[in-house]
Amino acid sequence: MPSNDVNRQWLLANRPVGWPKESDFKLAEGPVPEPGRGEVLVRTLWLSVDPYMRGRMRDVKSYAPPVPVGGVMEGGAVAKVLASDNPKFVPADIVEGRFGWQDYAVSDGKGVRKIDPTLAPVSSALGVLGMPGLTAYFGLLDICRPKPGETVLVSGAAGAVGSLVGQIAKIKGARSVGIAGSDDKVRWITEELGFDAGFNYKTVPNYGAKIAELCPNGVDCYFDNVGGEITDAVFPLLNPRARVAVCGQISQYNMEKLDQGPRLLWHFVRQQLKVEGFLVFQFADRYKEGLNQLAKWLTEERIRYRETVVEGLEHTPAAFLAMMRGENIGKQVVHVADA
Amino acid sequence: MPSNDVNRQWLLANRPVGWPKESDFKLAEGPVPEPGRGEVLVRTLWLSVDPYMRGRMRDVKSYAPPVPVGGVMEGGAVAKVLASDNPKFVPADIVEGRFGWQDYAVSDGKGVRKIDPTLAPVSSALGVLGMPGLTAYFGLLDICRPKPGETVLVSGAAGAVGSLVGQIAKIKGARSVGIAGSDDKVRWITEELGFDAGFNYKTVPNYGAKIAELCPNGVDCYFDNVGGEITDAVFPLLNPRARVAVCGQISQYNMEKLDQGPRLLWHFVRQQLKVEGFLVFQFADRYKEGLNQLAKWLTEERIRYRETVVEGLEHTPAAFLAMMRGENIGKQVVHVADA
Repeated sequence: MPSNDVNRQWLLANRPVGWPKESDFKLAEGPVPEPGRGEVLVRTLWLSVDPYMRGRMRDVKSYAPPVPVGGVMEGGAVAKVLASDNPKFVPADIVEGRFGWQDYAVSDGKGVRKIDPTLAPVSSALGVLGMPGLTAYFGLLDICRPKPGETVLVSGAAGAVGSLVGQIAKIKGARSVGIAGSDDKVRWITEELGFDAGFNYKTVPNYGAKIAELCPNGVDCYFDNVGGEITDAVFPLLNPRARVAVCGQISQYNMEKLDQGPRLLWHFVRQQLKVEGFLVFQFADRYKEGLNQLAKWLTEERIRYRETVVEGLEHTPAAFLAMMRGENIGKQVVHVADA
Repeated sequence: MPSNDVNRQWLLANRPVGWPKESDFKLAEGPVPEPGRGEVLVRTLWLSVDPYMRGRMRDVKSYAPPVPVGGVMEGGAVAKVLASDNPKFVPADIVEGRFGWQDYAVSDGKGVRKIDPTLAPVSSALGVLGMPGLTAYFGLLDICRPKPGETVLVSGAAGAVGSLVGQIAKIKGARSVGIAGSDDKVRWITEELGFDAGFNYKTVPNYGAKIAELCPNGVDCYFDNVGGEITDAVFPLLNPRARVAVCGQISQYNMEKLDQGPRLLWHFVRQQLKVEGFLVFQFADRYKEGLNQLAKWLTEERIRYRETVVEGLEHTPAAFLAMMRGENIGKQVVHVADA
């Protein structure tokens, strides 16, 4: 028990306006918390930074309440149990839970799961074997439902979710095409992950023409992480009865009000589109199925992943901001401590 | 056989730009056609004019090929069989089919169905017991899937489709709220059809505030015939897991390019929305089920309908244009001849 240690915590200093800045966060120090009855005390090893966190900084009604100003930033983490009054956990267990941007946390154990460190590096519980993996798995397979031979297009294709979507689509016999934000990302998804094609939207002037070129049979499934002009270009190219999984709209998250764009709903009628927004939580009762399948594919080397690692809790806001700017390839994590 | 008669035909004179004008159509006269082997000759009694026809005047790729310039305008009609070489039909049968804007037509019988004139006035085969009825039935029940106690909001609520959607929603135990374009229409849907509430969007300055007032529990199902600013106002008020059936976007049909509006896809994620565009044809193998149920409800007086009738084939373009301007209440039809 590191009782002489301090618990560094990243607080939300104020609600960001537009693009967040490092000054919107504040590093505080406090005592290491004491676990109460039924609780566990954990030491953070790895922190996840994810696009959804931008929404938690905003004081609007959404699917989850916002982080209060002055509160510890929320987020998933992999941690080591230091002390436990909870029968589900013993010291030295490696666990994943929503412990927040801090060195130590106490938890009543709800939503905390044990990680098998022999299966894969434990940080993967924040990526391929965690929320992003499940998001890709259920969003693609339950909402897009690709059939063999169909074309699956993914935006944000080199991110934690998108990179898996394209690989799972390949496993299911579909053709995978990815849209990403750098030549390195496009090389990674096509040369290492097996996507059939991809392009860097930052160097392509006409998205629609490029998508039409890379998807000569049209688009049957679109997995959207990005929204905005990229998505505007996809809708006219969707095939009849195409399915769209709306996973995220990162292009919009730093806008103070919803952007304007071409109205898309006529395409829905014309092509009988099914377009579904989803949150991974809606599949909570099937997480086990998803994690087992993802672990199996990972073991069989049918899916690969990559992490962009920032060292040190003190750099968590910087890691978050870099991820929002798209500087990561694969899953962006923060390494806080060794097990 | 009225072989000395002429066949008046409305041709598409040129492709309308923006709002169609009467001069975009041309009345021609030709001989009454002779039915060939396996064909029927029919006399048009009632013509349907519908919003989808605006799309057929446009030379763009869509779910159906456009009417060629100089071609007879397409459309559904109720007609009487005058002569038949088709074993399915005999003279004096009343039939419904896509006979076009003309006095007489020949058909090979494909897509032609016999109408029971004892069930309801035969013009209802163009409305409640025809394509609009099936559109309402399947769009609401298969796509929106309202549950008892839920709120169903309908745009274009006093039209052929919308007026049925709200009534079927009531039959299923939901609360129906309609948006229409005149006080008379709102009175009709609320006082005669049993909608729980409605408003005239032409006299309400803030659609969102009005919808929130009339739907205090939010909107669980939205059946959209209109699109544009009305639909923009609905999306922020949709409940978690709401279902949207996109049936039409009449506000957009006379625009030369897709309008701009607020981007809606973030709402899809935030509220886990399922938004589906559909064409009634996708339910073709279940038409019989739909028509039987609609006829039963009609007989039981659980649904009501209304027609706006224009007299005379010569006024078909005027009837179409009046319908596009929203001057009709219920189904807009043209009465061409008596049986």
